[in-house]
Amino acid sequence: MYSGLHAEAPASSPLRRRRQRLGRRLFSLSLSSAGKMLRRRIPQAGHLMTSKSLWMTEVPTEDCDVVVTFPPRTSDDTVEWFMGRIRQRTDLVVAARRHPADNTHRLYVTASTPSLLKWAELNELPKRMKAEHGGGFKEFTLQNANFFEGFEDKDSFLTNQERQSLVLCMINNLRASKGESVAGLKLIEGQAIIPKCLSRGVVAQMFPLHDLSKLKRLNTGWVRAFARRQPLDDVAEYFGVKIGIYFAWLGHYTRALILPSLVGIVYWGKSFRRETQAEDDLWFVLFAFFNVLWSTVYLESWKRRSAELAHKWGTLDTSDELIQEPRPLFKGELQVSEVTGKLELTYPWWRRNVRRYLVGWPLTAACIAGDMFVMWTLLELQFWWEKHTHVWGYGSWTNYFPKILMAFTIGLMENVYKKVAVWLNEFENYRLEESYQNHLIVKLALFQFVNSFASLFYIAFYLQDMERLKKQLGTLLIIRQVVGNIKESLIPFLKGQMKLAQMSFAMFGAVSPSMEEKPKLDASPAPEDGSTSPRSDAGRQARNISQAEIESAMPQYEGTFEDYLEMFIQFGYVILFSSAFPLAAFCALLNNVIEIRSDAFKLCAIFQRPFGQRARNIGTWQDAMEVMGVVGVIVNCALIGMSGPVHRLFPDISTTQTVLLVIVLEHALLLLKLLVAYAIPDTPAWLQAEIAKIEFNRREVHKRSLSFGSSFSSVDSSPQHRGAPAPAAQ
Amino acid sequence: MYSGLHAEAPASSPLRRRRQRLGRRLFSLSLSSAGKMLRRRIPQAGHLMTSKSLWMTEVPTEDCDVVVTFPPRTSDDTVEWFMGRIRQRTDLVVAARRHPADNTHRLYVTASTPSLLKWAELNELPKRMKAEHGGGFKEFTLQNANFFEGFEDKDSFLTNQERQSLVLCMINNLRASKGESVAGLKLIEGQAIIPKCLSRGVVAQMFPLHDLSKLKRLNTGWVRAFARRQPLDDVAEYFGVKIGIYFAWLGHYTRALILPSLVGIVYWGKSFRRETQAEDDLWFVLFAFFNVLWSTVYLESWKRRSAELAHKWGTLDTSDELIQEPRPLFKGELQVSEVTGKLELTYPWWRRNVRRYLVGWPLTAACIAGDMFVMWTLLELQFWWEKHTHVWGYGSWTNYFPKILMAFTIGLMENVYKKVAVWLNEFENYRLEESYQNHLIVKLALFQFVNSFASLFYIAFYLQDMERLKKQLGTLLIIRQVVGNIKESLIPFLKGQMKLAQMSFAMFGAVSPSMEEKPKLDASPAPEDGSTSPRSDAGRQARNISQAEIESAMPQYEGTFEDYLEMFIQFGYVILFSSAFPLAAFCALLNNVIEIRSDAFKLCAIFQRPFGQRARNIGTWQDAMEVMGVVGVIVNCALIGMSGPVHRLFPDISTTQTVLLVIVLEHALLLLKLLVAYAIPDTPAWLQAEIAKIEFNRREVHKRSLSFGSSFSSVDSSPQHRGAPAPAAQ
Repeated sequence: MYSGLHAEAPASSPLRRRRQRLGRRLFSLSLSSAGKMLRRRIPQAGHLMTSKSLWMTEVPTEDCDVVVTFPPRTSDDTVEWFMGRIRQRTDLVVAARRHPADNTHRLYVTASTPSLLKWAELNELPKRMKAEHGGGFKEFTLQNANFFEGFEDKDSFLTNQERQSLVLCMINNLRASKGESVAGLKLIEGQAIIPKCLSRGVVAQMFPLHDLSKLKRLNTGWVRAFARRQPLDDVAEYFGVKIGIYFAWLGHYTRALILPSLVGIVYWGKSFRRETQAEDDLWFVLFAFFNVLWSTVYLESWKRRSAELAHKWGTLDTSDELIQEPRPLFKGELQVSEVTGKLELTYPWWRRNVRRYLVGWPLTAACIAGDMFVMWTLLELQFWWEKHTHVWGYGSWTNYFPKILMAFTIGLMENVYKKVAVWLNEFENYRLEESYQNHLIVKLALFQFVNSFASLFYIAFYLQDMERLKKQLGTLLIIRQVVGNIKESLIPFLKGQMKLAQMSFAMFGAVSPSMEEKPKLDASPAPEDGSTSPRSDAGRQARNISQAEIESAMPQYEGTFEDYLEMFIQFGYVILFSSAFPLAAFCALLNNVIEIRSDAFKLCAIFQRPFGQRARNIGTWQDAMEVMGVVGVIVNCALIGMSGPVHRLFPDISTTQTVLLVIVLEHALLLLKLLVAYAIPDTPAWLQAEIAKIEFNRREVHKRSLSFGSSFSSVDSSPQHRGAPAPAAQ
Repeated sequence: MYSGLHAEAPASSPLRRRRQRLGRRLFSLSLSSAGKMLRRRIPQAGHLMTSKSLWMTEVPTEDCDVVVTFPPRTSDDTVEWFMGRIRQRTDLVVAARRHPADNTHRLYVTASTPSLLKWAELNELPKRMKAEHGGGFKEFTLQNANFFEGFEDKDSFLTNQERQSLVLCMINNLRASKGESVAGLKLIEGQAIIPKCLSRGVVAQMFPLHDLSKLKRLNTGWVRAFARRQPLDDVAEYFGVKIGIYFAWLGHYTRALILPSLVGIVYWGKSFRRETQAEDDLWFVLFAFFNVLWSTVYLESWKRRSAELAHKWGTLDTSDELIQEPRPLFKGELQVSEVTGKLELTYPWWRRNVRRYLVGWPLTAACIAGDMFVMWTLLELQFWWEKHTHVWGYGSWTNYFPKILMAFTIGLMENVYKKVAVWLNEFENYRLEESYQNHLIVKLALFQFVNSFASLFYIAFYLQDMERLKKQLGTLLIIRQVVGNIKESLIPFLKGQMKLAQMSFAMFGAVSPSMEEKPKLDASPAPEDGSTSPRSDAGRQARNISQAEIESAMPQYEGTFEDYLEMFIQFGYVILFSSAFPLAAFCALLNNVIEIRSDAFKLCAIFQRPFGQRARNIGTWQDAMEVMGVVGVIVNCALIGMSGPVHRLFPDISTTQTVLLVIVLEHALLLLKLLVAYAIPDTPAWLQAEIAKIEFNRREVHKRSLSFGSSFSSVDSSPQHRGAPAPAAQ
């Protein structure tokens, strides 16, 4: 069946067997009679109804960091074209294989340790220095390689994730010459070939392979360790700092939710006890205050934690953004850069600003306005419908019609807008991945904010119906989270399983009933030679599938964006309206305890491994949440003003005075928020000292190292004067 | 008459003569008959009534950077004690002299070029690198001295101001040993001796000498060049970057005032034309909007300009604050620092926070509350008085009694509070001069804000009397500026002149009438040998006074603090209430055009030269002004809401609706302000590129320099891969 350029080289190991068991425990679905009916209609459905270990044995792929796959029906010539260019123009080591089942090609890419080290220097990869050379992270240089921790063992000096990131850099640096084209796609001189081909579908996928032993450790110590703290250092090392920061943030946020959950439960509990209205009102106001203060302190404390982590993971100092490498899809003209003096893609900032302010923002604003209009129309329709169906005497199920229409429309608009936003952001042509992401966040967060909260604002401030607000909030909070988890975990998981089953079916045929009844797992070890020939066991085949094949069937991880967005909206529900629905924080807490592990599961088992990315902090999400905090103050004050407590606490007050009182309250709260934020330093004192220490040491080392270079004067360059008393004169 | 350790060494030069002429033109007061009467009573008064050149000839002091003076009646032993310690424990060159007239001692301190260069390195003085070594500013090191611009001529490598700052560092680094004491003052081990003695009056003054030739250039090209742009680079070089930034800011602010002045004049002009009330109201609202927008754009544009200047003057990168030298008066225990590993004064951050939050802030708040209470009482008294004097039929002059009382009380409270604030700030014990200043700014700006604006707020929002507001604002704005200029320039100027006259009288006796009638200026040159013997000219003495003597009679410049404070309050008048008094910006503009030159005159002719200080920007004043901008939005909106335009524009609106409308307007304006601030980058694009270029060059140079040090691998370390296409494969 195999006819590729190389044969797949499956290998068996204790690891594989352990992974099989893991797979069984995690995924096994025991469906029986209903399944049998289905199986007769869809041949490969049998796979999904039996234990995965029966129809698939994972064989680790060796000597490969990154896999590049081509779409079906790609010609051998095209593959050869890529192979040739990679070999000629890069330091990469590449092997090509053809997949037997669907006739697709894959490139297995890796690089030698010396090339990787060279690229670590070119990319200014920060590595930890030995303490005697100043400590802290510093850009790796080959000349000073021995100053870095762990360089004694060159092969394990770079982590698996760093290797893959460097290989990615090398791949992205494969650039087109003048007039080149492949598979009908014309390339512009200087363009990064593979990213361009990926965006046009000439290349199907590019992903780094999992490190199965480390993945297993993460599975036991992270995904399934509900009660334990997350092993964040391992996560950051394995998936990159950006994902590490996401999980650290999610954990920090979840812990921070404990306090408002408790307060919320107490407040909610009080509503069952008979109390005077005045007491109730006072509690309402206090709870709103508490929300505002909590959100401020939480946001500030995260900044401190984030600085700690960035320091620990070596991303606190990032180099000047004009020196950093541009995004692969950044468009520009090749010009001699005034910064580096070399040929570089450049794009004038004013043209970006023209696009941003004359196209980007107006279009975004128009989309949001459109969204608001549609939301308003649908809400009006909903109320009209409710009133008229009562008049017409229709059954209650018809009530759901406008709600379904609304849910459908919202989903549709979200998808359409997302495409528009990505296109606009691409059009604005940001040079760096980071600024690209940050601007995309602003665009999408704004839209999602309107989409998620418009109906609540409508109910709270237009209808002024607090009861309805409570119901709507509870429903939205719970439904969104359930739907979110299904959308982000279950569906991709099932899709991936389906694809694997198809692959197994195509390669080895249907699962036989005998296999299903007598699963003799781990009875006979797989042959060490790694052939794909049928096993000796009667009636069963060694359904060996290589790791690369399995992972290429998995969907691609889209980044932390959707996860942050979900949490951002949740944070909004908690701080905007929780005085109406005090259990919001508790619901969020419950959800997040599961969310942490389900997101971890997603990364470890459902999606392809993502390339590691560096990040100093959570970027624009911090700003977005701070804006949400301010909106929280305004909304809470407005709720206090509207829902009557002021009026009941001070019965003689006029409406104007109420409004003025609420305004004063709002301004005082905003001032308080500002003062709290100002009083809490963004970097903890110990970390400041630590950073200063590293900087000081580095200067000392630098001074010492310079004294070898030139010698102008023999002045003692290690000053002893810093505050120490001079020798006594007596 | 001379009996000091050295004799004064006066010298004559064309420069001196030119300075005499300058002095005459600037200061000469021609008083005649009334003066003669006065002269009979106060002997030295004669000096003040005649041209200064008659009773004083300035002789430049050579070979001296910094002068330290002792109070009268300091014993020779004390002076010897200081001399000995300076000679033993520092690299300074010191000479002592006794002043003949009042028997006071002075130390003339300087240092050799090699010691200064050594200290330039120890203090990490940033100097400009040669272009071939990366360009931009970098901390000076002796080893790489030849990489810096202008090092070929070692003696002129450091500017006069840099020399003096380094000498100051060396003086401040003269630290006490265990158990030392001088003139009854016990010193703590490790304490900076001279700053401590200065603060306790054991040492009277310490100031750097003027560079007379450069001073003259500044006089012609800056102080008296009203129509010309300020020579900011020269100012920053001569007085240090901190003062340079102040004048740059003042100039930028003054230019920025042109636009609101013009708009204000147009708006004010319209009030004379008969227009409908509706049109008037619309203009009122538009003018308030304009104010808000202008202040935002102005504040943002200053940030950009500030970044440019800091880059040009080498203060953009300041080293980590925990590495910087502490303030001389910083108190702490000598401990091995965890940052530098050396003995350093340390003070735990939590103790500072305890002092700040448990003592500093509550006391500040109490002072401000007390101030508000006193202001309110006085205002109430004033109105009560006005009503009752009408009833009693007293003359109109009695109306002024409470106003005088108020002015007097305000002045008194300002002075008392200033002492409290300085004491509190000292008590909070900030480690760095910069943070000390910033916290002092916050304390004083808050208080001054209340002191300056309380009466206006009272009139605008409590009395709601717009006519009275206009009058009060105009009066305050003009009186404050006139009084301010008298207080800050005229009084110190007269005091200095008086002191000089006393000195001349004590040294040479009264001015004889013959001299007064026949001033033969510059007729005979002063003797070159520098003796103070009577001149050959009959009836006249060579009234030679050395530069050091003259400058020690001048008052000390207290720093830019008062100047900023004055401008901060002025900015407040302009943006808070100018919709009530549209000519506020124009008054401010007129004042500032003069203020620039009078501040320049102050620095060049009235006060002692200050030590140069470094600054990256205007520090907390920027924040203070941004807060003022936000307060401006609130106040302007409140004025719009209160003074009726909304009600007249929409006659059917209810009071509650008016308030709501104003609130929405306020929030919209604040949002707009935020968006404008966000859209204008704090660093201009060209400067970003420039900074990145320097950083890039430096890395390249660094990589090259490292390749001499060790040699692990011979990999090409000048990457050619940055976006440039790889060689074509064809």
